[in-house]
Amino acid sequence: MKICGVVTEYNPFHNGHLYQLEEAKKKTGADVMIVAMSGNFLQRGEPAIIDKWQRASVAIQHGADMVVEIPSAFSVQPADLFAKGAISLLVKLGIDVLSFGSETGEGKDFSEAAKIYLENEELINKIFQKKQAQELTYAKNMSQLLKKYFPEITLDLTQPNNMLGFAYAKELQKKSEPISIQTIRRKNSHYHDQKVKADDRIASATAIRKLLLSSDEWLYKKKLPFPKETQLCLHQSKLVHWEDFFPYLKYKILTASLEELNQIYLMEEGLEYRIKAVIKEAESMTDFLTRLKTKQLSWTRLQRLCFYILLDQKKEEVEGRLKKIDYIRVLGFNKTGQAYLSKMKRQIKTPLITNVNQKNSTLLSYDITVGNVYRLADSCKIKSQDFRRKPIKID
Amino acid sequence: MKICGVVTEYNPFHNGHLYQLEEAKKKTGADVMIVAMSGNFLQRGEPAIIDKWQRASVAIQHGADMVVEIPSAFSVQPADLFAKGAISLLVKLGIDVLSFGSETGEGKDFSEAAKIYLENEELINKIFQKKQAQELTYAKNMSQLLKKYFPEITLDLTQPNNMLGFAYAKELQKKSEPISIQTIRRKNSHYHDQKVKADDRIASATAIRKLLLSSDEWLYKKKLPFPKETQLCLHQSKLVHWEDFFPYLKYKILTASLEELNQIYLMEEGLEYRIKAVIKEAESMTDFLTRLKTKQLSWTRLQRLCFYILLDQKKEEVEGRLKKIDYIRVLGFNKTGQAYLSKMKRQIKTPLITNVNQKNSTLLSYDITVGNVYRLADSCKIKSQDFRRKPIKID
Repeated sequence: MKICGVVTEYNPFHNGHLYQLEEAKKKTGADVMIVAMSGNFLQRGEPAIIDKWQRASVAIQHGADMVVEIPSAFSVQPADLFAKGAISLLVKLGIDVLSFGSETGEGKDFSEAAKIYLENEELINKIFQKKQAQELTYAKNMSQLLKKYFPEITLDLTQPNNMLGFAYAKELQKKSEPISIQTIRRKNSHYHDQKVKADDRIASATAIRKLLLSSDEWLYKKKLPFPKETQLCLHQSKLVHWEDFFPYLKYKILTASLEELNQIYLMEEGLEYRIKAVIKEAESMTDFLTRLKTKQLSWTRLQRLCFYILLDQKKEEVEGRLKKIDYIRVLGFNKTGQAYLSKMKRQIKTPLITNVNQKNSTLLSYDITVGNVYRLADSCKIKSQDFRRKPIKID
Repeated sequence: MKICGVVTEYNPFHNGHLYQLEEAKKKTGADVMIVAMSGNFLQRGEPAIIDKWQRASVAIQHGADMVVEIPSAFSVQPADLFAKGAISLLVKLGIDVLSFGSETGEGKDFSEAAKIYLENEELINKIFQKKQAQELTYAKNMSQLLKKYFPEITLDLTQPNNMLGFAYAKELQKKSEPISIQTIRRKNSHYHDQKVKADDRIASATAIRKLLLSSDEWLYKKKLPFPKETQLCLHQSKLVHWEDFFPYLKYKILTASLEELNQIYLMEEGLEYRIKAVIKEAESMTDFLTRLKTKQLSWTRLQRLCFYILLDQKKEEVEGRLKKIDYIRVLGFNKTGQAYLSKMKRQIKTPLITNVNQKNSTLLSYDITVGNVYRLADSCKIKSQDFRRKPIKID
């Protein structure tokens, strides 16, 4: 029996994701496809435009046999921590192979690059701290460093998907389980593409979101870059974005003291003063972030920081949660996924959560709070994102 | 030169207030009328329906020579602490006489009752703690106790205005300055009247607010229980009520830990558990308070508690601020008030704040936060409630 893992956000699930799932299943010959997906807040510090249940449901209708949630502690994080959470989950669930989209490179290129990196990690960190140029992002600094000092790494790390895949590969290397990598070449669109081209059946999630949040007229087009189930979800839901949380963020910053803000995870020394001053003038989230952004403080980093302010998460609290994955939250499955889960139940030592209740809620208290905050933007008034929500079953 | 002080909330300024101001000036023969008014959040834990600047402006147009703000630390409090703040302010400003509305009783009845009370305070507190019936309010318990054990107090303390006046009288008794009391008999309406009667030119503020918040049609009536300046303010502004803050309160309760809630001022032991549970179901502020209310927890007490949760005020913080009045905030004046202020400037030792700026903002930081929170409900987007706002001048 072959088990393949995929790390995703599906914001929203589109034809590129469908292609990747189908190709992964075909190329790996997997019997079970397990998807580790971010919950309601995502890697780049943004809320998902539709909730995790709807996104999981569409995924199961299009090739995923099981969807598990990457705990919020790991999902709203830079690539390395995000990868740590996602890969740990998948390894606990017994995957044999990990599949991800890449711009170039095969599985072995990623494994080799990861091996070289880990063997030289201490040295790399030392060089990195000295050499990093302030005007470049972490990814750009790191890819330049590796290219210069470790020419034996042939993998092109200047591409965003490759950099993310590299993070997964490093996490896999740390595990004792022998897990292979199957890359899928990305079709048509690029990760950061800003525009959906006319009649483009595969577009980047960035481009799709941009269009969705500016107008929904576009949803009535004949050729859409996502399956009709995604279209239905987008029609039925109020699309959630950061602006929905801006009033709460503003209120929070206005009522928190400088000392309290200083303790928030990701808050850099002194930044709390600027945040306190800028919030008074800012009229929207976009306005707020535009005023705060500098060469050193990227939009993504600021979004993550704002998420942690909104959730009132102090440094020690978050760091404590990042030590290990201590539960596996199942969002949904089909028959194949359910059968696999029944079979694995005894082998998996980490608690498997299929129904959040009083008994296990302490374990998930942070995710529950994240869900409650997400619901503040929910005009559909879904009673709960977590408590008493059972996994989606699709036969 | 005779100076008369009045304690008010003016939510909103109506014909009853106008009558009281005119009568007070006439009866006391005062040269200067000084009004101590609550800011944007009021004694019973509610936001003012229109902001403090508009309310101060109308007051100055109708007989007040100067309006000073009761610091928020004292304004959202039971009668005794509210009186402590208001009376301290007025005494610092050099009043000779205090005027207030009462159902029955003359100035000397209040002074005598206050004197007897203070002479026996320790004893009264002891009896009070033993005798209080849980189903009665503080006011009812206290008036019953005084009637039973101190028959020499002839003042009827079962009436709400008398009870409030009694609190003022007690504060005056504690001061070394000889300040007299001039009562004004209330006309027509009763403090807690729920209905404005047809063509009633004097109605209670409770009744007026109830009508205003249910519909504004009523504002187009010919005979209104308030002057046209109040009507204008009500027309121009979005009327603010607790529901405007409910989303923030909900967010706050959802993201605060039980330990954090436990530390909030006025939070009774264990109540934080009920609050955390009830907020998940509550769909509005009215719904929330209705679910929380018990015989022991009055609506007013709960509203005040919610205010302190909203402002994230811990027990020690609030108690620290209640020790003394350490600034006098001037909201507005006419020529008479301004001249009096210039004359008094050197005699008043407490800082007089006419313009909030970087230099004095630390002193007022709590009031500034209260103002910022109030502005969250303000659709008119007034830039600031405090910073750089100069007193209203009406000639």
